[in-house]
Amino acid sequence: MLNFSFYNPTKILFGKGQIAAISKEIPKDQRILLTYGGGSIKQNGVYDQVMAALAGRTVFEFAGIEPNPTYETLMKAVELARREKVDFLLAVGGGSVVDGTKFIAAAIPFVGDPWDILANRGRIETALPLGSVLTLPATGSEMNSGSVVTRRATNDKLAFMHPLVYPRFSVLDPTTTFTLPPRQIGNGVVDAYTHIMEQYLTYPVNAPIQDRFAEGLLLTLIEEGPKALAMPDDYDVRANIMWCTTMALNGLIGAGVPGDWATHMIGHEITALHGLDHAQTLAIVLPSVMQVKRDKKRAKLLQYAARVWNLTDGDEDGRIDAAIAKTREFFERMGVHTYLGDYGIKADAVPALVAQLERHELTKLGEYGDIDLPTSRKVLELSVAA
Amino acid sequence: MLNFSFYNPTKILFGKGQIAAISKEIPKDQRILLTYGGGSIKQNGVYDQVMAALAGRTVFEFAGIEPNPTYETLMKAVELARREKVDFLLAVGGGSVVDGTKFIAAAIPFVGDPWDILANRGRIETALPLGSVLTLPATGSEMNSGSVVTRRATNDKLAFMHPLVYPRFSVLDPTTTFTLPPRQIGNGVVDAYTHIMEQYLTYPVNAPIQDRFAEGLLLTLIEEGPKALAMPDDYDVRANIMWCTTMALNGLIGAGVPGDWATHMIGHEITALHGLDHAQTLAIVLPSVMQVKRDKKRAKLLQYAARVWNLTDGDEDGRIDAAIAKTREFFERMGVHTYLGDYGIKADAVPALVAQLERHELTKLGEYGDIDLPTSRKVLELSVAA
Repeated sequence: MLNFSFYNPTKILFGKGQIAAISKEIPKDQRILLTYGGGSIKQNGVYDQVMAALAGRTVFEFAGIEPNPTYETLMKAVELARREKVDFLLAVGGGSVVDGTKFIAAAIPFVGDPWDILANRGRIETALPLGSVLTLPATGSEMNSGSVVTRRATNDKLAFMHPLVYPRFSVLDPTTTFTLPPRQIGNGVVDAYTHIMEQYLTYPVNAPIQDRFAEGLLLTLIEEGPKALAMPDDYDVRANIMWCTTMALNGLIGAGVPGDWATHMIGHEITALHGLDHAQTLAIVLPSVMQVKRDKKRAKLLQYAARVWNLTDGDEDGRIDAAIAKTREFFERMGVHTYLGDYGIKADAVPALVAQLERHELTKLGEYGDIDLPTSRKVLELSVAA
Repeated sequence: MLNFSFYNPTKILFGKGQIAAISKEIPKDQRILLTYGGGSIKQNGVYDQVMAALAGRTVFEFAGIEPNPTYETLMKAVELARREKVDFLLAVGGGSVVDGTKFIAAAIPFVGDPWDILANRGRIETALPLGSVLTLPATGSEMNSGSVVTRRATNDKLAFMHPLVYPRFSVLDPTTTFTLPPRQIGNGVVDAYTHIMEQYLTYPVNAPIQDRFAEGLLLTLIEEGPKALAMPDDYDVRANIMWCTTMALNGLIGAGVPGDWATHMIGHEITALHGLDHAQTLAIVLPSVMQVKRDKKRAKLLQYAARVWNLTDGDEDGRIDAAIAKTREFFERMGVHTYLGDYGIKADAVPALVAQLERHELTKLGEYGDIDLPTSRKVLELSVAA
C-alpha cells in the first residue's frame, strides 16, 4: 500500500425525506444563496421541499448553472453573493451545480482575479461554507473537494481541489432521481464506473481492501445500472446507484493506491472542443486507454476480467480483450456510445484535441506519467470508430 | 437500504514515517497532554518519534491508561489536564488509550459529575480536541466517535458516543505494530472481524455496496491475519490489517444497514466480571449468537457462507453449520480461544453474567431487539464448552 492522507468531513444525509433535515444544518441567521441549473427542480418538487425546509430564512436564488459550468456564468453568482452579503451557499442539482458552487464559494472572498483559482496561480485562504442537495447521481462532487469549470471564451476546462470546499453536508434522496431522463442516468453510471476504473486499473500495490471496494462498486453498477433504466422508480435501485456514485469519488477507494486519470484529461478536451457530455467522452476514451496501456496494466486487467466479469478461461490476452469488450458493451447498454464516430466526430478532429492537451501541458498522463502526446494521439485514433 | 446519516471528519495519516506529520496538525501554541498506556511506546521508539515531532512544544504526560480503561485512572488525567490548562490531547497507543482519551476530552470541560457522560445522564456541550498515534490495530477508535470505559468500583463497562470526540487526526504507521505480541495481533483481528460481522450478519436490506465492503474486509482479515502472526515485520500485511481494523468501525459499512451488537454487549459483561480480553469475549460469544439466531439470520448466514467461505454445496443448514465452524476455526487460528471453558470459566458463571445484563437493562439486544435475557442465557450456556 502507498502512504496516504485521507480526510473527508462532508456529512451525508441519505434517504427519502432527508431534504427536510437541511434546516438543522444551516445556522438560522445565515443569508443563503440557493444555486441551481435549468429549473428541473421546480418541476420535480425538489425546489418546494428545499424552500419549505428554509421557511423563514433569507434566501437568494441564482439559476442557470449549465452542464460543464462556465466561469462566465459563475462569476455572475459571485457578484450577486458579494452584493447581498451571502453567508452560506446551497447547491441544488447535479455535479455541475455542485462543482460550480464550490468555485463560487472560493471566488467570493478571493483577493485578485478568481480565474487564478482554476489556473492554480492563486492561493485559497478562505471560502464560504456550502451544502448540497443532490438530484443527479454521477460525479461524486457532493462528497469531495474537487471542481471542474469551463471558460467559454477560451475553451479551457480546468479543475481545482481544496479542503475548504468540501460540502458541509449533502442530502442524497434517491426519490429526487426518479424523474431523470435515461440519458442522465446512463451518463451518471458511466461517469462513476470510470471514476472507479481510474483508481483501480493501474498496477498492484498489495492493497486488497481498496481493490475489493472498487470491484464491489463496479459489480453494483453493472447489476443496478440497467435496472435503473428499466425501472425508473425503484427506490432501492436508485439508492444503490446514488451511494455508488458518491463512494466512487470521495477519496476512499483511491487512498493508498496509484491513480490514472488519463481518460478524464483526454475526455475533458473532447467536451471543450465538441461539447459532448462528460460521460460520453469517458465511454469513448476509457476502452482505448485500456487497449493502448494493456501491457503495463496487465496484472490489474486480468484481475478485473476475473473478479468483475468472471472471465477466467482462455489465454491472458483473450481475457483482456474480452474484459475491454465487456466494458464497452456495458456502456452501450447504459445508452452511452463508445466511439467518436457515433457522435459525428471523425479522424480529422484528432490533431486539434492533441494540440489542446499540449496547450494545457497534459503531456505526462497516467499512473506512470508515460502517456505523452503521441500516446494520447494513439488513444484518440483508436477511439474514432470500431 | 435504510436511511442514514454519515459523518466522519477524522483525518487519517497512513504509512511509514507519518508520525512526523503531527507537528503540522497541532497548532504551535497549544499545551499538549500526551496520554499512553503501560510504556511499550518507550521501548519501540514511538515515544521518541512523537517527542521529536513535538520538539519545542509544551507537553505534559499521563501514563498508565490500562486495557479496558477505568474511570478511576482517567479522572486522574482529567485533574492533571485541568490543573495544567491543557489545550490538546494526543493519545499514543491502542484502542484503550484512544477510548480513554476521548473520555478525558469530554470530561475536562464537563460541568457536573463526569460519570454522567457514561451513564448517559449529562449532555456534552464541548470537548477538548484530540489526535491519536495508533500502535495497535483493533478497535477502530482512531476513526470513530465511540468510547468504552469501565468503572472498577462497580464493574460497570459503559460506552458513549459524541461527534465532538472524533480524533482530529490519527496516524496509522504499520511499522509501529511490528513489535506487538502475537496475542494482541490475534485479539485485534478478532475484534475487527466481529465489528464487521455485527454490521453484516443481520438481515438483507438490498444494500449490495455495504455487503461487498464488509465481505471484502472479512476476506482480507482471513488472508492477512495468519500472515501477520507468521511474518511480524511484513509491512504490507500489517498495513492491510491496520486499514481493515479502521474501516471495520468508522461508520461506513454500517451506514444504511441494521446492526446487531449483541455479541459486544454480552462480551462486555464477561470482561467486567472475569477480566478476559475484549476480543476473547467476542470470539466466545459470536459463534453462539450465530447458532442461536440462525433462523432469523438465515439469509445473511447463507450469503456469508458462500461469499466469504466459498461454501455453496450441500443443504442450507449444513452450509450454515460449516460457516459457523469456519468462523470458530479462524479465531482459534488467530490464537483466540472460543469457549468460556478455555479460560477456566464454568457453567455456574452464567447466572451472574445474565444478572449483569439485567442490571444494565440490556434486555432487548440484536437487530430485532429480540435477544432478551433468556436468549442471552442460551447464548452463554452454548459458549461454555464444545
